[in-house]
Amino acid sequence: MSITMPTRRQLLSMIGHAAGTTAMYQAMTSMGFAATSDYSGPIELAGSQGGTKVLILGAGLAGLTAAYELRKAGYDVKVLEYQNRGGGRSWTISGGDSFTELGGHDVDCTFEKGYLNPGPWRLPIHHYAVFDYCRKFNVPLQPFIMKNNKAYLHNSQAYGGKPQRIGDVETDIRGYTSELLAKSVQQGALDEQVSAEDQEKLLEGLKGWGVLDKNYRYVTSEAVGEHRGWDVLPGGGLMPKAEPSTPLDFGPLLNSGLWEQLYVFNEYVHAPAMFEPVGGMGRIGDAFTEQTRDLIRFNARVSKIEQNEGQVTVHYEDREGGGEVMQETADYCICTIPLSILAQLEIDVSDEMKRAIASVPYASAFKVALEFKRRFWEQDEWIVGGISYTDLPIKQIAYPSYDLFEDGPGVVQAAYDTYPTKNYTYTWNTLTPQERIEAALEFGSRIHPQYREEFISGTSCAWHRIPWTLGCYGQWTEELREEHYETLCEFDGRIALAGEHCSHIPAWQEGAILSGLDVIRRLDARVNA
Amino acid sequence: MSITMPTRRQLLSMIGHAAGTTAMYQAMTSMGFAATSDYSGPIELAGSQGGTKVLILGAGLAGLTAAYELRKAGYDVKVLEYQNRGGGRSWTISGGDSFTELGGHDVDCTFEKGYLNPGPWRLPIHHYAVFDYCRKFNVPLQPFIMKNNKAYLHNSQAYGGKPQRIGDVETDIRGYTSELLAKSVQQGALDEQVSAEDQEKLLEGLKGWGVLDKNYRYVTSEAVGEHRGWDVLPGGGLMPKAEPSTPLDFGPLLNSGLWEQLYVFNEYVHAPAMFEPVGGMGRIGDAFTEQTRDLIRFNARVSKIEQNEGQVTVHYEDREGGGEVMQETADYCICTIPLSILAQLEIDVSDEMKRAIASVPYASAFKVALEFKRRFWEQDEWIVGGISYTDLPIKQIAYPSYDLFEDGPGVVQAAYDTYPTKNYTYTWNTLTPQERIEAALEFGSRIHPQYREEFISGTSCAWHRIPWTLGCYGQWTEELREEHYETLCEFDGRIALAGEHCSHIPAWQEGAILSGLDVIRRLDARVNA
Repeated sequence: MSITMPTRRQLLSMIGHAAGTTAMYQAMTSMGFAATSDYSGPIELAGSQGGTKVLILGAGLAGLTAAYELRKAGYDVKVLEYQNRGGGRSWTISGGDSFTELGGHDVDCTFEKGYLNPGPWRLPIHHYAVFDYCRKFNVPLQPFIMKNNKAYLHNSQAYGGKPQRIGDVETDIRGYTSELLAKSVQQGALDEQVSAEDQEKLLEGLKGWGVLDKNYRYVTSEAVGEHRGWDVLPGGGLMPKAEPSTPLDFGPLLNSGLWEQLYVFNEYVHAPAMFEPVGGMGRIGDAFTEQTRDLIRFNARVSKIEQNEGQVTVHYEDREGGGEVMQETADYCICTIPLSILAQLEIDVSDEMKRAIASVPYASAFKVALEFKRRFWEQDEWIVGGISYTDLPIKQIAYPSYDLFEDGPGVVQAAYDTYPTKNYTYTWNTLTPQERIEAALEFGSRIHPQYREEFISGTSCAWHRIPWTLGCYGQWTEELREEHYETLCEFDGRIALAGEHCSHIPAWQEGAILSGLDVIRRLDARVNA
Repeated sequence: MSITMPTRRQLLSMIGHAAGTTAMYQAMTSMGFAATSDYSGPIELAGSQGGTKVLILGAGLAGLTAAYELRKAGYDVKVLEYQNRGGGRSWTISGGDSFTELGGHDVDCTFEKGYLNPGPWRLPIHHYAVFDYCRKFNVPLQPFIMKNNKAYLHNSQAYGGKPQRIGDVETDIRGYTSELLAKSVQQGALDEQVSAEDQEKLLEGLKGWGVLDKNYRYVTSEAVGEHRGWDVLPGGGLMPKAEPSTPLDFGPLLNSGLWEQLYVFNEYVHAPAMFEPVGGMGRIGDAFTEQTRDLIRFNARVSKIEQNEGQVTVHYEDREGGGEVMQETADYCICTIPLSILAQLEIDVSDEMKRAIASVPYASAFKVALEFKRRFWEQDEWIVGGISYTDLPIKQIAYPSYDLFEDGPGVVQAAYDTYPTKNYTYTWNTLTPQERIEAALEFGSRIHPQYREEFISGTSCAWHRIPWTLGCYGQWTEELREEHYETLCEFDGRIALAGEHCSHIPAWQEGAILSGLDVIRRLDARVNA
């Protein structure tokens, strides 16, 4: 393979041939870069000429996307929201915030700086709709450091409980698997599957990929130092000679359980680069709320949803009022109330829809954030952003990607789990707010011994105890989806549901927004049919 | 392996046992997190009581580190600098900047926003000295996005010249190598090397790592979609069903040369997370300059360096003066002038040292930056930060990690190479500034067809044409180091050299700073002997 530009003359001659570029341009624009997204830009609705009225229940991202776009298209829109704020789970808890959870405990937050995003906290770049609305609503974004090779993988039963750096484990896994595959190739084990020519290429690739020596072994060397790091770093002048670090032994590494902890970084939703709003994820919920504030009635607790052939009637009471039940009627209702709540309300839909509503369990996710006197993870351990994973019930420790390298206090997301493995998430949800902080401190100090000494305060969110969701998100299984998903998303008379639970991207804001867009596209088509 | 916290009671009981934590703390603080760095914090010098005078040549990071620390320790310090600015190669070119390169061409920069860092442009976290001085001198830092799975790998001879996304290639490499290794294990090819029990673990690991199906094959599937992406993304409501993307075929991938382009991301110096100063790398050079400005004589062209047993005398002229030769004497001289320049000056050192000075070639690195009307790489292709690699002579296109998602113009680092592969870097250095821009445009438009349409302006730095360095950095080979490095770093009478060329980290600011620290530590020991 050769590229031109061996000489100056040839290069200049080539630059002259700009004609080729135009042809190339046309060829490449038809490659369809944007074709991978169902979100291909702003929605276009036919609109309502007759002032069709749409009542939206819930001022989270699904509801507010629908409200914003429907109003823009000429619909008469009203939103009822249980809380005194919009944004739903697009929410940030900062110093001065407090709320009462189910069971009566108050959760407060006294952080001087920093925050907890109890729900979504990071944006993968293929969540195109989220980014498009952030641009439209002027939500400034910054990089979110998902993977940091300095952060830890930790298994309390391996390496005497000593955490290992992510970069060490990954480099070693790559090295050993490359060595073993090279060995197999050289032994002829793959002669049937791989041609002789490809075997050459494969060996060459493995050598570079796994940092293997000339005998295709993964062993301590300068080159390995340049990939997994050094016991003594290369220095300046006549400083001591550099010493490459030594790979972990293969057998213990295989049995440590740490390889499995690396998988998370290979997922498409966690691929670099990721992003976050400046100031916390709640800035997105806030921005949607600002755009639609005049449409929202806050503190409205919905109790009953009725419909007949001509209209929908929703009964609700003002949570700060005297308990008087009020009504709102509309041509259509888009209901984004979480299924965990909706299943307990009177709603005038088919039995099939009712079964669907009642069938989806809600994730018992929880998070704890701890504030420390200083950013010791940066200052002592050089972990600047990123996430450590552990088999302890805290599951992970996420270091902030903001206020990097600053003096003064900092906040880490000290515990987060969403799957009820070994019932940890359920147990966490039984703890009081103070006990959650204590538990996060206790487990976290096994990874960061500085925890107790540096601790200032904590806050948390145990989603099963949040009155307006009773859980974190719709935890679909393949079987449940097969049986109920379409029913749940179809219009039932004049009522249609929306929200992350009505999407194939549960728990993510993109799912909520796309669900909102999908439901109004169908509503608009129906109105204009 | 089991962790406690199956029940609330057990958890609370465990929290009570805080005594264990203290023991754990002591065990872990002795793990020696900081032991991996030769830079273990601020330097401690015995200092000069008698006002020892040190003359430093060159106000780059090596020289200014020495100046700052020596003055602090009581030395009488003066710095002579050729340019009218300090910082050396820690430099940022922004709108309004201009300079004249060797050959007489003016290079200017008219960028509205954004910049070119012609030298260093990203900070790996283990460059502890750089970070410590940034903290000390209040240089704010932000994440530098090194790896972005949306950016491209490109070989003009593969896939019809169509660039491939980094995430696709990496996921496929991981998938196919895992599949082949699993096959080898199952065929018994590794029975001698790997125990039966470890083979089980290995197969399990490969399955998750490579996203293999139940037959250990890497093929299109939902699971593969969740790792390498989708042709149709999962949507909301009743949007079209998601379709996972299809892996590239193994043979063509092996032969595409793209695997090799991935290696760069596995290097320790490029490991996530990386950082950069807000406003460009030159903010570091600026900060060092601010700290030492009163010690620096700018525009001083050194012509001769003499020494005898008692002192060092340096001859120089003011570049803005009338050509009058001036002298400065001192007890010691720390000379950080690049070897490419120093080799041409009269200097009173041993023949051995002279040979060392004359022996190290300087890298012919170059960079071109282009300003475009809009951030089309973000808006059209969802590449937000990161670097695309290509076999074209531009070698790489680096997208800015700052001003993300903004409207208006943006600047990419459109060409950068440092190794004289196929003589490309030499050829680039023969082009005029305008021709470099044209070449970067021409080659870059094969990857981003939007280039011509969106182009506003460009700037560049061809290091061999920069009068004060005549090259980018000392390009050591193992043989050269063996023969000359120690000589180069040892004191020669009252003269000692410093700079990135006197370090094991050439081209990096960390090398310059550590070299400066090392030389003053030895000087201080000698003064206080």
